[in-house]
Amino acid sequence: MIETDILIIGAGPTGLFAVFEAGLLQLKCHIIDALPQPGGQLAELYPKKPIFDIPGYPEVLAGDLVNNLMDQIKQFQPGFTLAETAETIEKLEDGSFIVTTNKGTQHKAKAIAIAGGLGTFEPRKPQIDDIAFYEEKGVDYFIKDPEKYRNKNVVIAGGGDSALDWSIFLANVASSVTLIHRRNEFRGALDSVEKVQELKKAGKIKLITPAEVTGINGSEHVESIDLDINGAHQNIKTDYFIPLFGLTPKLGAIANWGLEIEKNAIKVNNALDYQTNVDGIYAIGDVNTYPGKLKLILCGFHEATLMCQSVYNRINPGKRYVLKYTTVSGVDGFDGTRKEAEKAVVKSIE
Amino acid sequence: MIETDILIIGAGPTGLFAVFEAGLLQLKCHIIDALPQPGGQLAELYPKKPIFDIPGYPEVLAGDLVNNLMDQIKQFQPGFTLAETAETIEKLEDGSFIVTTNKGTQHKAKAIAIAGGLGTFEPRKPQIDDIAFYEEKGVDYFIKDPEKYRNKNVVIAGGGDSALDWSIFLANVASSVTLIHRRNEFRGALDSVEKVQELKKAGKIKLITPAEVTGINGSEHVESIDLDINGAHQNIKTDYFIPLFGLTPKLGAIANWGLEIEKNAIKVNNALDYQTNVDGIYAIGDVNTYPGKLKLILCGFHEATLMCQSVYNRINPGKRYVLKYTTVSGVDGFDGTRKEAEKAVVKSIE
Repeated sequence: MIETDILIIGAGPTGLFAVFEAGLLQLKCHIIDALPQPGGQLAELYPKKPIFDIPGYPEVLAGDLVNNLMDQIKQFQPGFTLAETAETIEKLEDGSFIVTTNKGTQHKAKAIAIAGGLGTFEPRKPQIDDIAFYEEKGVDYFIKDPEKYRNKNVVIAGGGDSALDWSIFLANVASSVTLIHRRNEFRGALDSVEKVQELKKAGKIKLITPAEVTGINGSEHVESIDLDINGAHQNIKTDYFIPLFGLTPKLGAIANWGLEIEKNAIKVNNALDYQTNVDGIYAIGDVNTYPGKLKLILCGFHEATLMCQSVYNRINPGKRYVLKYTTVSGVDGFDGTRKEAEKAVVKSIE
Repeated sequence: MIETDILIIGAGPTGLFAVFEAGLLQLKCHIIDALPQPGGQLAELYPKKPIFDIPGYPEVLAGDLVNNLMDQIKQFQPGFTLAETAETIEKLEDGSFIVTTNKGTQHKAKAIAIAGGLGTFEPRKPQIDDIAFYEEKGVDYFIKDPEKYRNKNVVIAGGGDSALDWSIFLANVASSVTLIHRRNEFRGALDSVEKVQELKKAGKIKLITPAEVTGINGSEHVESIDLDINGAHQNIKTDYFIPLFGLTPKLGAIANWGLEIEKNAIKVNNALDYQTNVDGIYAIGDVNTYPGKLKLILCGFHEATLMCQSVYNRINPGKRYVLKYTTVSGVDGFDGTRKEAEKAVVKSIE
């Protein structure tokens, strides 16, 4: 059982920044996310795209913002349960919660902060008979650890950035990469398209278009796939089949936690602390709704901060908290590090 | 008469960022500030100190944050009325406002956003007879344009960073710089103290400690000052006398605008749009208060953003606003510039 002060569901920018604000209050955090890495949609969907409305950043690449946030919270040593989704919640008599994931991992926390963004990103799956049987037996919708494919034969399907970028990356890892798309045209960053073109010419990526995967074969693991190439049938031997058809956000199991939901978002008390109708469960960032709500990262930062204050008061009833400015007081990390402004000296001049 | 959509009172980080969010909504802004430069206390009080709790910045110098915000809003061409304080407000029949400064500058706006921080920074003035008479006649509490002092004799009084830093700066501008402090010890950044020590040795700064200025002389302009040096009297000829004894924030004239005030802050409706009890007047950032309020820059950013949305609805009643993400839609500046993410290409691979 993982124990923490605040269990954060969702490792997007709002969830990550909550770790920092909690840390200033000496509260520990653990984060659950369905994706294999932190950052939410910024890391998964558009890491190389610029964001222009983060305050103080005339321009920042989404992936860089995630890296900066990870760097900012490092000192508060957050725990991560990645590539798992929060499924069930149980409220204990002492007011704390136990959250269990789809893989059975249990987390006990004094408060829950749902920072789920648009929801759990679920892969769009191709409509192929028996594909569910082959999941984790050669069919992957996410690439968690590219090393898994070293010296293996890999078939990737899809026509967007993910399919292009992973084909490029795995071209130097797998023993063969075959990229299949139902159209001749790919849609992605110009340099990615050009790089795939290059790798194809160099014989490092095999391209089959327009084509669709229609079947998967293998007794215990993927052994080959069936292709429809403009009406003609073909069978290709492969160890892995990775369809990268994009992600759809779904609120998922959280929708059944007894929280007030409005238009696929969780209603919160924005007049105070972004708490939901369930005492001790908060919702921050794009996942919540209230009058005037804007689904902006900078709003999530504010909501995360007020949530942490509320949790502090919840955990330390009656204790008066005095806000300290980081510039004045410095920041004490849980890892023993200390950040602080250079001290003024008091010195006479001779 | 200066006309604008949103008149922002206070050029601190919250007021500056409001310009950006307003710009995304095609609203123009003009900012009034009592200080001679934008940035509020970040620029005036601690430009070289690091802030650790700006989301996405593990560490940023206050002055750099201001520069970045100025860079971010540049494209929306805000107007500035600097070194003046908002004194009176008049609400016109059409719901717009006229705000007049202490220097008589008039501003007409459709909405007012008070982003006044802890208040107008008023200089702590030394208790010297007739000092008020010499204000703007040789006595300055702020340095707006250092060129004013070129080839002049300048006396600076004070023992902190401002006194040290301006003595250093003016040492190469004025024909003489005399630094006076009532103690032998100065309190400031180590390198500033050392630099003053160096300039003193080089004869570029004259240091008189412990000493106090007790009188100012001159018929129409400062001509000399009287000093008490450990009980001994001395008279020094000078063109300017610049006491830099720190700033005290005062809510000032805004306290008389009919706004609900609580504990020296302006009460706002945090459940919606950070509007005050006066329709069309908002208060954002450290100057406002509401249940759970935290005086943090990141909270001001959020408040500024929701304020802008509210003003948009006020100015465009009934018009439905659809939130666009800067990553997707780009940013169109009022100066004709356009920022946008690199477009995806749709391209076949041969």
